[in-house]
Amino acid sequence: MFEMRAVGFVNSPYTETSQIPKGWGASHEAEGVLEILPEFEEGLTDIDGFSHLFVIWVFHQTDGYALLGKPPTDDRPHGVFATRSPYRPSPVGFTVVELMRREGRRLHVRGIDMLEGTPILDLKPYLSSVAPEKLRRGWLAEAEARRQKRS
Amino acid sequence: MFEMRAVGFVNSPYTETSQIPKGWGASHEAEGVLEILPEFEEGLTDIDGFSHLFVIWVFHQTDGYALLGKPPTDDRPHGVFATRSPYRPSPVGFTVVELMRREGRRLHVRGIDMLEGTPILDLKPYLSSVAPEKLRRGWLAEAEARRQKRS
Repeated sequence: MFEMRAVGFVNSPYTETSQIPKGWGASHEAEGVLEILPEFEEGLTDIDGFSHLFVIWVFHQTDGYALLGKPPTDDRPHGVFATRSPYRPSPVGFTVVELMRREGRRLHVRGIDMLEGTPILDLKPYLSSVAPEKLRRGWLAEAEARRQKRS
Repeated sequence: MFEMRAVGFVNSPYTETSQIPKGWGASHEAEGVLEILPEFEEGLTDIDGFSHLFVIWVFHQTDGYALLGKPPTDDRPHGVFATRSPYRPSPVGFTVVELMRREGRRLHVRGIDMLEGTPILDLKPYLSSVAPEKLRRGWLAEAEARRQKRS
C-alpha cells in the first residue's frame, strides 16, 4: 500500500454524482477551481503558461471496487481498466482540464467532472497528444457503431 | 492521507534512473510489460481494443519532494506542478503507452519510462486528445526557443 497526500481540493459545481454529465454526448465544459493548499503554492510556479493540465485525484466518495461493470455508454460489461468507472482497486481519478487563469493558489479551469471537495493528489502539465489517426478506442467505438445502427 | 494499492508492476528495461532518456529529443520508445496481479486480471477485460493507455504509477524510489526544481530541459527552475519531476508531494507518475498486445495478465507496451519493478496504481483507456493547435506549453516552449536561438 502507498500513502498519498492531498495537495489541494476541487471547487466544483457538482455536489452529487447524478449531476455530472455521463454517457453519449456528455461534454465536460463545467468551470471550477483547483485550490492548492498554501504549503504547496510554490509548486505552481510557471504553471500559468500551460493551456491544459492533467489532474490526478481521489474518488473519495466511492467504496470498494468492481472488476467488471456496465459503463453508461454501453449495455455490455467491460473490465474496470478499460473504462473510467469510479469503482477501481486504487480509487484514482484523472481529468484533463483547460487552465483559464491562475489567481495565487487558485487555478480557474474548464472541464471539471469531479465532485465538490474532491482531493487532488497531483497536477502535471499536458505536453503532447496522441494523433487522432493513431487512436483505437476498442469497445467504445464498437458500442458507438451499434448505437448508430439502431438509430 | 489516502491509501492506494498496487494492481501490478512494470517490467522495464531500465533498472536505474540514469538509463531513462531525458531532456531535449528524449524519445520513449522502450518496450516493456505491465504485469497485472492475478486477482485483478478480470479488470483487463476488453482492454485489448485500445491502442493507448494511461498508466498511473508510483515513484517508489524517490524520497521527499521539492516544490521548485530545474528540469533537464531548462537551466531555470520551475514549480513541481509545471514539470514532470519525480520529487512530488504525492509521488504519482503518469505515462501514456501504446498497447501492442495482451497475453493474459501481461500487457506488452511501447513507451515505457519507468524503472523495473515500478508499482502500477491504475490503468485507464486513452479516449481522446487535445488538438495540437489548442496546446500551449509554457516554459517548455520558451526554453526550446532560447535553445534554438543559441544553436
